[in-house]
Amino acid sequence: MSDRKEFRDLATPDAAHDAIASLDLSPEPETVPLEDARGRVLAERVDAAIDVPGFDRASMDGYAVRARDTFGADEADPAELDLIGAVHAGAAPEVTVDPGACAEISTGAVMPEGADAVVMVERTDELGGAGEGADGEPDRIAVRTAVAPGDHVMSAGADIAAGARALGPGTRLTPREIGLLSALGVDEVPVEGKPRVGIVSTGDELVRPGEPLDPSRGEIYDVNSTTIAAGVAEAGGEPVLYPHAGDDYDEMERLLRRAADECDLVLSSGSTSASAVDVIYRVIEERGDLLLHGVAVKPGKPMLVGRLDRGGSDADGTVPRTGESAYVGLPGYPVSALTIFRTFVAPAIRKAAGQPEPATATVEGRMGVSERYGEGRMRLMPVGLLDLGDDGFPLVYPVDKGSGATTSLVEADGVVAVDPDTEYLDRDERVTVQLFSPDVRPPSLLGVGEDDPALNRLLDRLENPRYLPVGSREGLRRLRDGVPDVAVVAGPTDREIESVDLGGWTREWGLVVPAGNPADVTGAEDLIDRDLRFVNRPTDSGIRRSLDDELDRIAGERSTTRSDLAESVSGYGLTVRAFESPARKVMAGDADVGLGLRETAERLGCGFVSLGEQSVVVCAAPDRTDRDAVRELSTALEDPADLLDGLAGYSRNSRNEP
Amino acid sequence: MSDRKEFRDLATPDAAHDAIASLDLSPEPETVPLEDARGRVLAERVDAAIDVPGFDRASMDGYAVRARDTFGADEADPAELDLIGAVHAGAAPEVTVDPGACAEISTGAVMPEGADAVVMVERTDELGGAGEGADGEPDRIAVRTAVAPGDHVMSAGADIAAGARALGPGTRLTPREIGLLSALGVDEVPVEGKPRVGIVSTGDELVRPGEPLDPSRGEIYDVNSTTIAAGVAEAGGEPVLYPHAGDDYDEMERLLRRAADECDLVLSSGSTSASAVDVIYRVIEERGDLLLHGVAVKPGKPMLVGRLDRGGSDADGTVPRTGESAYVGLPGYPVSALTIFRTFVAPAIRKAAGQPEPATATVEGRMGVSERYGEGRMRLMPVGLLDLGDDGFPLVYPVDKGSGATTSLVEADGVVAVDPDTEYLDRDERVTVQLFSPDVRPPSLLGVGEDDPALNRLLDRLENPRYLPVGSREGLRRLRDGVPDVAVVAGPTDREIESVDLGGWTREWGLVVPAGNPADVTGAEDLIDRDLRFVNRPTDSGIRRSLDDELDRIAGERSTTRSDLAESVSGYGLTVRAFESPARKVMAGDADVGLGLRETAERLGCGFVSLGEQSVVVCAAPDRTDRDAVRELSTALEDPADLLDGLAGYSRNSRNEP
Repeated sequence: MSDRKEFRDLATPDAAHDAIASLDLSPEPETVPLEDARGRVLAERVDAAIDVPGFDRASMDGYAVRARDTFGADEADPAELDLIGAVHAGAAPEVTVDPGACAEISTGAVMPEGADAVVMVERTDELGGAGEGADGEPDRIAVRTAVAPGDHVMSAGADIAAGARALGPGTRLTPREIGLLSALGVDEVPVEGKPRVGIVSTGDELVRPGEPLDPSRGEIYDVNSTTIAAGVAEAGGEPVLYPHAGDDYDEMERLLRRAADECDLVLSSGSTSASAVDVIYRVIEERGDLLLHGVAVKPGKPMLVGRLDRGGSDADGTVPRTGESAYVGLPGYPVSALTIFRTFVAPAIRKAAGQPEPATATVEGRMGVSERYGEGRMRLMPVGLLDLGDDGFPLVYPVDKGSGATTSLVEADGVVAVDPDTEYLDRDERVTVQLFSPDVRPPSLLGVGEDDPALNRLLDRLENPRYLPVGSREGLRRLRDGVPDVAVVAGPTDREIESVDLGGWTREWGLVVPAGNPADVTGAEDLIDRDLRFVNRPTDSGIRRSLDDELDRIAGERSTTRSDLAESVSGYGLTVRAFESPARKVMAGDADVGLGLRETAERLGCGFVSLGEQSVVVCAAPDRTDRDAVRELSTALEDPADLLDGLAGYSRNSRNEP
Repeated sequence: MSDRKEFRDLATPDAAHDAIASLDLSPEPETVPLEDARGRVLAERVDAAIDVPGFDRASMDGYAVRARDTFGADEADPAELDLIGAVHAGAAPEVTVDPGACAEISTGAVMPEGADAVVMVERTDELGGAGEGADGEPDRIAVRTAVAPGDHVMSAGADIAAGARALGPGTRLTPREIGLLSALGVDEVPVEGKPRVGIVSTGDELVRPGEPLDPSRGEIYDVNSTTIAAGVAEAGGEPVLYPHAGDDYDEMERLLRRAADECDLVLSSGSTSASAVDVIYRVIEERGDLLLHGVAVKPGKPMLVGRLDRGGSDADGTVPRTGESAYVGLPGYPVSALTIFRTFVAPAIRKAAGQPEPATATVEGRMGVSERYGEGRMRLMPVGLLDLGDDGFPLVYPVDKGSGATTSLVEADGVVAVDPDTEYLDRDERVTVQLFSPDVRPPSLLGVGEDDPALNRLLDRLENPRYLPVGSREGLRRLRDGVPDVAVVAGPTDREIESVDLGGWTREWGLVVPAGNPADVTGAEDLIDRDLRFVNRPTDSGIRRSLDDELDRIAGERSTTRSDLAESVSGYGLTVRAFESPARKVMAGDADVGLGLRETAERLGCGFVSLGEQSVVVCAAPDRTDRDAVRELSTALEDPADLLDGLAGYSRNSRNEP
């Protein structure tokens, strides 16, 4: 391990921003068809090349007249004019309006020669009788009002005239700008180019989603490539995913060089493999510059910034590209990679693409808990948000599951930059949250507690909830600490937390065994007395609590202690995270018996030995019961029958009847 | 005209929402590759199908040990363990850790059999000397700390376990959700479909952008099709533009039927041609239902809502579609069409696509002026916004250029729904603005006044300004009324408005004549004394004011009045909107002389007869000089030389020296 790079002299976050700002990511402007222009940014000013409208047009339905002919006309004494024809929109006028004449005209039609005003149809009468023409159409019109020259006429260029400034450079094209460009007849638009951003994966263990995975070799799916590619596209860049090089370092070097040739920016997400990092160093040292190496920000220690010289030609081989590509190496853990990308890289891509950061990319919040920190460097703290919908700022709470957890990606909504000098963030202190994406919508409801299949259905019926399956015990603890709206509690609890019972159901729990129960397990005593490999759930889970109670009962019968009994169960201390996990261990042949639900056993085709029923109760924090989202949850709970439909072992809990 | 449809019994806006809500626009869910999933909405819950990680993994670089072997170890008394090999990420462990042994392990690597904890490399020492192996590698490790089972190990499924709920239905997929799906190995995602929205143009006068236009036939470019198509895409639909049918009503009928067959929703934007409307009625009456006809909202009178029965097969002919398509007829004027689309149709498309309305689609503001209204129906008032960047809400001001003006599209930012009972909106009254698009960014600076080519350059240097070329006189009036930040004033003014002079320049003005000045025009006297066709600018423009002063001077010499002189100029009352327009009339042979700038004449290759210089001054409202955008403008004005570079007749105005 002596060859591992050490990170000394970490750069300040500002120096990292400066280093990235010093790189040139800007692509050439390009021209796109109008129908593809939405969301792009004008690279140059667009002036009107034509008058809009291109002709003097009627802006009402009525009669085109010489205004002078109507002077003095009113209801009592209308002016009578000869009707000489009609002009319709989209047709050239075939008449000339001489003094004493008028022509029927439609909105949008070209004003005929001679006419200088339009009288609204509502202020006229068709004159029949002697004046009526042979075809039954009137040939005289009474005008009951005077009009001035220009009345109800939009003159050529009155909307926008040739030569006038229509849209400035830097304008983001939304539907309305596309409308104005259409009015000007523009069907191709000069826009800022999208920076090409190459993404190179450098981990031996990484497998692309959709491909087969071999966990025994330590393989995991590549999270960063797709996450960062989506982030690049969102920031206005064009992501280019390069194939995995696996553990072939020559190939990795070749890919890095190719990416530099083809892209404006190359990103790699730090491999945990020291050799891969060495390849990156070698390529940068041989063919580029390393601008900085490690940033004094948690989690920015492994961040690299540099340049890669180009030496080849671009993707399709037609345009040889010279100069250099920017390079940024991101940390390997997904939340860290997204955090560093969002903080340092996405702003640079937006700038190069001419795209402003959306207003929704940042929200103000207030700490829902207090938080200590004191590592002497800036911390980009992943946080979740909960908008209580009151007048206050949304609640902010740290999400710290260890940066290796991909679930932090969806349990956190963004990061708070905590200054190196800040050792303590107080509850209710105001903080600024940089959302992971401007499209991130903080959840409407935050729940914590037991995991449960009926609960999953309930959550599906709510609008944008967040649920953290931390177990019943931990759920109650968090409810007490004041951040979540509700805790879901299964089985017996020893915590007395003030809360409001919104309803719930009953579930049957017990031992999951292989189909047909080959070992003929009949109860918890078999775990104690026989040599069966057992898989348990964590002590925070309500189902474990029920099993502990069962062991207490047996210990009472045998005049011993639960811990003594537990000692004799092979695997009592082996706990797995989710409600299906023990059953899956049993199915995989890794265990003989697992703690679980009848629902899970039947759904997965396992055998099941019932040990009892336990209630599952949704408890709301007393100060949250008036929130819309909590009411919505409460309403959804009112008819649990439908919710429990087809779930084996589930029933309505009589104590939770509405 | 007797066959024109009358709109009676207008529906309420709520009834219109209800009618549209009663239509079924929802497409079938579809499955898309993960790389195309950003911005889409999950159609169903995604549960984890695998454990993440799929194996017990080291979460630090260090040594995999049996925790029991380290019990009691500390700095003073380290435990010494045999180093039996190494395990790297992405490789299957080839060693088993027996009691007294350890294995080097990299972050992310599979825990070897026997080991149950990892000691961080920082808490260990390699032991050299006698224990060192033949290859120079250490073969014993001193462990200076005790670890508990599970320390620095992430157990299989600890991040997310198979069977656990990962993402709920209705989740909008941003980069982080794409990251979690990647971690689960998901490469295809079930998402809500995009409603197909057909757009049928029904105006004889409409020409697609990019095609040649014949203004003499009253042709205009089709604004609504592209605007609404962009709006459909923005709301999560898939727009389908149908070709223009021109004035062939059989073809129009065929297109409407085809659109109904192929789409979930068909939109047409109201033609000004009564016959086209009749075709739509006929098709709906023969093959559908008309649900409502005209809404009591300005500008919703011509709005239609209905259903069109399907009778054919879809676009590629493979999937015959039955049932019915929704139909909404939009008004014809662009701002009206976009307003009705945004208010009534876009929400329905979003709902069908499962997309929530972005938070940025609506902003709170306060009226910058007072506004009277009293037509007895709801008004969707187009408004502009100006965010002053202070603590208050942005200023809101009505934009009422007549709904036929396409420039209103970019001069307004959205609409305020004014209740039928509201006759008066007071200045500072709080209003809610529905932006035309969630991507609309209100301008940072609002300027009004004279149009000028140097000013256009200045505007190009600013970030997101808005400038309304209303003329110097009207500009000063608006500055006094308190909405704009700055007014740009050219030539003499008679208004005394309190303002702060930020700088400016001088421009040469005079008479634009054909190249070579064939009529040998020498001054304004020629306009009066000779039979020349003249084109003027409006009285609000500063350049017109200078010409009026010149006529006053001549009138003084001749002991007559300016109006007498003006009477004798052919075309003195003929005014055109923009600074280039008179020159363009001269170039087109429609006039002999036009009022204009030397800059315009030289750029367009015309002749020019100078009548003098006039100053152009940028005046700021006194209470706006501290705004960032105004300071930015002021800074850009400090070096006008660069700004005026190459502009003929422009010079630095001595009275505006910084």
